[in-house]
Amino acid sequence: MKTLKVGMLGCGVVGLQIARLLINNKADLSSRAGANLELVKISVRDIKSNREGIPSSLLTTDSNSIVSDPEIDLIIEVIGGIDPAKDLILTAIKNGKSVVTANKALLAKDGAQLYEAADKANVDLYYEAAVAGAIPILRPLRESLVGDHVLRVMGIVNGTTNYILTKMDENGTAFSDALKQAQNLGFAESDPTADVEGIDAAAKAAILASLAFHSRVTDSDVYREGISKITATDVKVAKAIDMVIKLLAIAELTSEGSISVRVHPALISRDHPLASVRDSFNAVFVEAQAAGQMMFYGRGAGGEPTASAILGDLVAVARHKVSGGLGPKESDYADLKIASIGETKTRYLIRLNVADKPGVLEAVAHVFASHKVSIQTVRQTGAGDKAELIVMTHSSTESALSATVRDLGNLAVVTDVASVLRVEGIN
Amino acid sequence: MKTLKVGMLGCGVVGLQIARLLINNKADLSSRAGANLELVKISVRDIKSNREGIPSSLLTTDSNSIVSDPEIDLIIEVIGGIDPAKDLILTAIKNGKSVVTANKALLAKDGAQLYEAADKANVDLYYEAAVAGAIPILRPLRESLVGDHVLRVMGIVNGTTNYILTKMDENGTAFSDALKQAQNLGFAESDPTADVEGIDAAAKAAILASLAFHSRVTDSDVYREGISKITATDVKVAKAIDMVIKLLAIAELTSEGSISVRVHPALISRDHPLASVRDSFNAVFVEAQAAGQMMFYGRGAGGEPTASAILGDLVAVARHKVSGGLGPKESDYADLKIASIGETKTRYLIRLNVADKPGVLEAVAHVFASHKVSIQTVRQTGAGDKAELIVMTHSSTESALSATVRDLGNLAVVTDVASVLRVEGIN
Repeated sequence: MKTLKVGMLGCGVVGLQIARLLINNKADLSSRAGANLELVKISVRDIKSNREGIPSSLLTTDSNSIVSDPEIDLIIEVIGGIDPAKDLILTAIKNGKSVVTANKALLAKDGAQLYEAADKANVDLYYEAAVAGAIPILRPLRESLVGDHVLRVMGIVNGTTNYILTKMDENGTAFSDALKQAQNLGFAESDPTADVEGIDAAAKAAILASLAFHSRVTDSDVYREGISKITATDVKVAKAIDMVIKLLAIAELTSEGSISVRVHPALISRDHPLASVRDSFNAVFVEAQAAGQMMFYGRGAGGEPTASAILGDLVAVARHKVSGGLGPKESDYADLKIASIGETKTRYLIRLNVADKPGVLEAVAHVFASHKVSIQTVRQTGAGDKAELIVMTHSSTESALSATVRDLGNLAVVTDVASVLRVEGIN
Repeated sequence: MKTLKVGMLGCGVVGLQIARLLINNKADLSSRAGANLELVKISVRDIKSNREGIPSSLLTTDSNSIVSDPEIDLIIEVIGGIDPAKDLILTAIKNGKSVVTANKALLAKDGAQLYEAADKANVDLYYEAAVAGAIPILRPLRESLVGDHVLRVMGIVNGTTNYILTKMDENGTAFSDALKQAQNLGFAESDPTADVEGIDAAAKAAILASLAFHSRVTDSDVYREGISKITATDVKVAKAIDMVIKLLAIAELTSEGSISVRVHPALISRDHPLASVRDSFNAVFVEAQAAGQMMFYGRGAGGEPTASAILGDLVAVARHKVSGGLGPKESDYADLKIASIGETKTRYLIRLNVADKPGVLEAVAHVFASHKVSIQTVRQTGAGDKAELIVMTHSSTESALSATVRDLGNLAVVTDVASVLRVEGIN
């Protein structure tokens, strides 16, 4: 059996698991790859940290020595971020090495440049671990559904925010308390911005959209709202109408044939398969023309799940090195344009604090009608100072809705627009 | 762009959809395959049937002329069954054509022979559509999870039986009524044996087990029980303890390192992700060492979903024809042995009609203890003639359980053993 030498860039939580599994499961992995997979070098920041089960002879602080080593065939990149990961990957590719990475931020920003480099150098660039951890979702989109037309991808792709929203739903707690709980349990970082504001999810949305629609989509194309403004009242109102609030990464084909790609909190029905995805679990819901509705569910993060995805890719690229082939190339032939958020159509749930007197509903309905936003249901609760209108719209563009909300705010009978939330998963 | 000619064997419900999509989506499919995909011949039984959208010039009654045509590069087989599908596929392979099939019965019986032939002829043999229709599950097992160790695969892979069990659960109907309803709605055949007795699910279990454990498993290795003996009372009792009855196809690694592969009805908790898979939907739940728990959910049958899976495979094998590579070969290096059903361990729920007098529980408990079957909970309901004991065991071997049930039947205080059901999804 041929031997393929593997070099790894980075050795944090994920890298440590990869190294352990590569060493401990070497015989199985090699049988499956059809080549002897040998981990020969790992670059780390601090060579003296304790890394149980990893021979210190493998460690180096010089990442460049790995990507330039002519003996090394395959590179695993788990440093993350843009610098120095990007240059290291480009150098590895230029030197004829296939690369497996989990670097969603880099792929969402500079994916096109990396895919072109890999194409030119005739090597594989695989990245299943970049979205939804261990859940196989990129390969199904890229390969299994390639004979179909994907219409919509809607995912819970960030475990931290899903954990926070689950606790808010279960316990009625405020966002800030649920965040603290998540931080105490290690589900959220001390600076939670990237998770809570949807930055992490937006990178994943860009990658999913690119694959689903055979077009180039970068993180800057993704409209983004986080969950920090979701209140305990929003969650309670959702519950009262049998819905739940989730942070969704959505990529869908518009009726005009462009791509709407966005990350924002949204209400979904408790009957929807995504509603039962709780705590830090991830899931991606896919609708395709012929296949219909599908869902892929599992652990979206963590050392072991991410290592599983990376090693699956490693065996795949190793098989190609043995057989001489290559995996499917990036495909952007469809070259669809990105819809602006203003054109994007969805339903909305709007809560208004209003004066409790005759004619209020008429005035409110007039504003909706003037912007051609059609109302599905209106529910009035409370009375006197606490009178509240809860309006569910039919599908409407974001721009029509924004104009409606602006005019509602100026109505004398409306004390304030308490909240505006999108509603997804209903056609 | 190179042209690849496609021949199709069979043109029933699935074939018709494949032909339509191949013709209507030709430009997209060709862009994705990197080759012009041209459907040139379809073999049918009756050339005169009405097939809207399919040029009659493509039709022939001579399947052999397709698999022997030197102009044809790729074969789609949707005849089903063993004869003549097997010989046709073997001839196509021998003639250097890659084959895409949905033929679960053939793969579960003679898969090894077909894989060897494909290997020898250096062609691809793809069959994603054979299990769970449009849901990508074989490619994730074969490729995405190849760097991990699969511990258990547990699937709802037959839509007919899941529809029947869902109706029994929702409406409290008897099996025979739910079956009639399924037949009236076209969800069950007039002879429902293959679905209801788990024959269809057993073929899929064999295919899943082979891929998950890198071993050869055929349909004859699969222990099989159908759902025709499930009563409305069984369903009601399950409901009372927050469980639901599903027909499960299970392939799992035993603690001795062999494979237990079986199809039978089983109780699962309503909290389990598989419990929410209703009506004719399918889902496959996978547990892997590093990735943890995953679930793949969607439409398991029907013309369009199956066509989606077939066309995904067609694009994949076409890409290989263009690039010169081949997909991953069948892998049976692990060569694990199949555990007998007697060795298989699981939990059980046993309902006993008993005499309502002191000492019954002691006598019953003694029988369980004598076979070392440990009891988790006992619940007594009713009184007098209708006294009933419901016993949930801890994990026990099938052989110990069978001996226990035999001895319980002989106890004077036990009127009869009303039902014995396995309980799955609890470790």
